[in-house]
Amino acid sequence: MYLYLIRHGIAIDLDTIDANRTDLDRSRHLTKTGRKKIQQVAKSLKMANLQFDRIVSSPLVRAQQTAELLIAQNLSSQLELSDDLAPSGNLESWLTWWESRSIHQPISKLALVGHEPNLSEWAELLIFGNVQHKLVLKKGGLIALKFPTDKIKIGTAQLHGLIPPKYLLNDEL
Amino acid sequence: MYLYLIRHGIAIDLDTIDANRTDLDRSRHLTKTGRKKIQQVAKSLKMANLQFDRIVSSPLVRAQQTAELLIAQNLSSQLELSDDLAPSGNLESWLTWWESRSIHQPISKLALVGHEPNLSEWAELLIFGNVQHKLVLKKGGLIALKFPTDKIKIGTAQLHGLIPPKYLLNDEL
Repeated sequence: MYLYLIRHGIAIDLDTIDANRTDLDRSRHLTKTGRKKIQQVAKSLKMANLQFDRIVSSPLVRAQQTAELLIAQNLSSQLELSDDLAPSGNLESWLTWWESRSIHQPISKLALVGHEPNLSEWAELLIFGNVQHKLVLKKGGLIALKFPTDKIKIGTAQLHGLIPPKYLLNDEL
Repeated sequence: MYLYLIRHGIAIDLDTIDANRTDLDRSRHLTKTGRKKIQQVAKSLKMANLQFDRIVSSPLVRAQQTAELLIAQNLSSQLELSDDLAPSGNLESWLTWWESRSIHQPISKLALVGHEPNLSEWAELLIFGNVQHKLVLKKGGLIALKFPTDKIKIGTAQLHGLIPPKYLLNDEL
């Protein structure tokens, strides 16, 4: 199966004074530029014939908005939220959740929308089994992993793509 | 500095009977589709504002033709050949050659055009210091590495991009 890890787009800044208030961080929304760039990224992914059986997103506003823009471009028709994709989440917990979710309905193309450094760390865990902080995932960027079976398992993935958004921004679109 | 590793495009097949004749393999040229796809990839890289100070290519025809199509799209004005980029070449030998080449003229954006499995193995060596065969580089695909200094050194790179050509093929271009 294929797993796509997508980082949310550019969101509004918090004032320095508020930067540690988790409740405020959860509600940060995409800027106008952030929305526009994600729309362009979504169009380019569609033109590359990407299609997700399901999108699972972090519940934070900037991630949800990113996921909704992917849905608006018909990249998927199913959207679900998972707290494990929030910045405080972790891969093992998400894997347990996903296993119970997918046991009766195998899925071959799944997209996750979330945050850094989580997503690139998850990718390294899924590929190599450990975190080395060697993958750089920009806002609006995408990581494509392929697993040898229909099971998402640590240390078994191959890296098929790490796409910075600048390769997906086409002003002509 | 940035190092870009680019795999040549689709080339003509050799008859099975000739597959082991190195002299014939060296002269395999790009197919019509191979040329067209590399031209599209080159246009997309140009639109993503890529620019190489120099391109160093494998001397094999299919790689040279790929490099020339990148030059034709103004992605660089300098092309050089290196036997170390041929399928029989190796990274350590190329690094020694490159060090003598670049000592008086630091270069910040270098592109190499070559073959698999060499390029993805070189990328893994430059990032992790060892080869794990976890990166998949398709024909016409690109790997983008960033080094913390202007020196290309094993085990020091970060992976900024692994771009399959399908994300760079835009029929509208």
